[in-house]
Amino acid sequence: MQPSRVITFTTDFGHKGPFAGVMKGVVLSRFPRASIVDLGHEIPAHWPPEAGFWLSRAYRYFPPGTVHLAIVDPGVGTERRILVVECDGHVFLAPDNGLLEPILTANPDAAVYALDLERLAGLGLDKPSLTFHGRDIFAPVAAEIAAGRLLPENTGAATSDWAPGWIDPPDLSDPRRITGVIVTIDSFGNLISNIDQDMLSSLENPVAHIAGHALPLRATYGRATPGDYLALINSFDVLEIARAEGSAADGLGAERGAPVVVSEAT
Amino acid sequence: MQPSRVITFTTDFGHKGPFAGVMKGVVLSRFPRASIVDLGHEIPAHWPPEAGFWLSRAYRYFPPGTVHLAIVDPGVGTERRILVVECDGHVFLAPDNGLLEPILTANPDAAVYALDLERLAGLGLDKPSLTFHGRDIFAPVAAEIAAGRLLPENTGAATSDWAPGWIDPPDLSDPRRITGVIVTIDSFGNLISNIDQDMLSSLENPVAHIAGHALPLRATYGRATPGDYLALINSFDVLEIARAEGSAADGLGAERGAPVVVSEAT
Amino acid sequence: MQPSRVITFTTDFGHKGPFAGVMKGVVLSRFPRASIVDLGHEIPAHWPPEAGFWLSRAYRYFPPGTVHLAIVDPGVGTERRILVVECDGHVFLAPDNGLLEPILTANPDAAVYALDLERLAGLGLDKPSLTFHGRDIFAPVAAEIAAGRLLPENTGAATSDWAPGWIDPPDLSDPRRITGVIVTIDSFGNLISNIDQDMLSSLENPVAHIAGHALPLRATYGRATPGDYLALINSFDVLEIARAEGSAADGLGAERGAPVVVSEAT
Repeated sequence: MQPSRVITFTTDFGHKGPFAGVMKGVVLSRFPRASIVDLGHEIPAHWPPEAGFWLSRAYRYFPPGTVHLAIVDPGVGTERRILVVECDGHVFLAPDNGLLEPILTANPDAAVYALDLERLAGLGLDKPSLTFHGRDIFAPVAAEIAAGRLLPENTGAATSDWAPGWIDPPDLSDPRRITGVIVTIDSFGNLISNIDQDMLSSLENPVAHIAGHALPLRATYGRATPGDYLALINSFDVLEIARAEGSAADGLGAERGAPVVVSEAT
Repeated sequence: MQPSRVITFTTDFGHKGPFAGVMKGVVLSRFPRASIVDLGHEIPAHWPPEAGFWLSRAYRYFPPGTVHLAIVDPGVGTERRILVVECDGHVFLAPDNGLLEPILTANPDAAVYALDLERLAGLGLDKPSLTFHGRDIFAPVAAEIAAGRLLPENTGAATSDWAPGWIDPPDLSDPRRITGVIVTIDSFGNLISNIDQDMLSSLENPVAHIAGHALPLRATYGRATPGDYLALINSFDVLEIARAEGSAADGLGAERGAPVVVSEAT
Repeated sequence: MQPSRVITFTTDFGHKGPFAGVMKGVVLSRFPRASIVDLGHEIPAHWPPEAGFWLSRAYRYFPPGTVHLAIVDPGVGTERRILVVECDGHVFLAPDNGLLEPILTANPDAAVYALDLERLAGLGLDKPSLTFHGRDIFAPVAAEIAAGRLLPENTGAATSDWAPGWIDPPDLSDPRRITGVIVTIDSFGNLISNIDQDMLSSLENPVAHIAGHALPLRATYGRATPGDYLALINSFDVLEIARAEGSAADGLGAERGAPVVVSEAT
């Protein structure tokens, strides 16, 4: 892997406090030419699956050789491990709490390492704090990898087990009736599910069922009457429930985790 | 135009989800030396005039040769055009929905092109999604222009018509009584209008009228009693209604679109 | 001091409007190779102490030679001075309103200058607006310092007096009973105080008292029952009140400025 100099951050730190900024300071102290991109800091607190979902859908738009940090880490300060994953030309660092499940599932040939601070003694890390591994471990390790001075395989022992994801993958047992969940909600109130368009290939006229509504799949936002709900495959190739010129989340009262079913039109 | 390597983003994407971050990944994949600046992602959803207002007031603080992306795009996925505008040493890309009206009005000699994907076949764009042209069209085109590999005049046919703005320009028919509207509200609750100080040159002692208050124009925030409302020409040369150490928006209950009148003191 | 090319921004501008973005445009216009990091823009409006607190705890994670801008400036447009401070290998610019008190207290050998626009005539600054010194003074001066073209000692006359901080330092008069205040609240609802761990060295079994709760100091978030309140020394070496998998701020109804006392367990 040829590093791209790009490092992305995905966290639940929000925008209060200097937490992401301080991590950038640590990166730039070690690797001044780094190009750091915020993928987002408004993951719901302590909810790893949304970070993993977005990262798995977003990483391929970055240059090969990008290092992706994802920190949603309710177990910081406990014995939970940190994983370093190399796959599809990218590197991912995250706590071993299920966050990376969508990436590991999609890349069965991923190389996975359990970060071992003893192997990294040469990096001159300070003793990590108990509550901010983003600054004390993730940021400096990412900087070293992005600078080409540290290879993923030298960060720790290879491992083939890891914590499971927090949400079940869609139920595909009945190809005529796919059941998934809402994983995230964007700023427009669009409800975004974990149902990939490939899972719907057996349906000729798919209809999405959510919160008492039955919505035939459409091609775009643009051809609906304001206020209408609509189901479509969004630009990240998953089923999304939108409301024309409105918020589907507000209108339907649907939250993260809400079930959504897609079946053949009757 | 000599590109500056700088690209600005102005959108209504908010900070949930990786949308702006993914666009940065696309830019950096094509042009690793790009310097990307967020002008803002909290434009009210689907309301282009605020994006155009801020962009028209902000662009001149960036280096000549900067490329400005503005995406507030309720019509994404329909047949609406994308405009590429070159004027005053800067380049602007936005949907043809009135967003760029303040810039086009202020720069009558602007060169305006209707982006034509067929002319851009050499860029190797993927087939665009129906809902995220920011990632699939705007970002790669901006990257190519900012890298100096694509000229605005090669993005599409020149055009001299475009969608009108969503808010009327101030009514200047009576030079003793200028009527405008509140275009935006900042984080402090200051109400910012579309009345430029040049429009008030015929008034000796201008008084702003809003929500039942008559406020003589003052020079600064700093010389008022806490709680007082005040009208001033702000640092972007437009009339602003502020409240000393408070929020004028909360105090007056005024929203975007609220009318404001400036007349001679009586 | 060898400049690092890095400039940090800490403001109360929020994320509405292009204010921070425009400052970045000004910086990049003068110093295209600048690397600008947002330390944060969600300081409570017009409340300098939080900016100074975070900056004093965060700056050392940036490379030596970094220039830090902090703008929480209720007095903009009045005669308040602007300070340029050099200490510990970093440079700080802020209004003289007490914001920098934590940095000046911790660095008694700091060199402090009162910015003098007449000495900076050679920089070609426009006449500053009355309401946006961030754009018109702070950003261009920071760019020139970060580019190595302007030395702090050439920005104005040395001074040894400045406005006091807005919150009292912790009361250490009784080493068995340390009294401080909550300075800031992060996105998780953790309450962060101005009590440094060094101030607690005389206590064997420290217990934090806040809002009717008595909380023995613990080592980490990770070993508590969900819902429990806990007191710990956080990663910035100050006393923090957290709630396991919840918000201490919401649960305790505690705000910025709330008193917190640490005493020996009885």
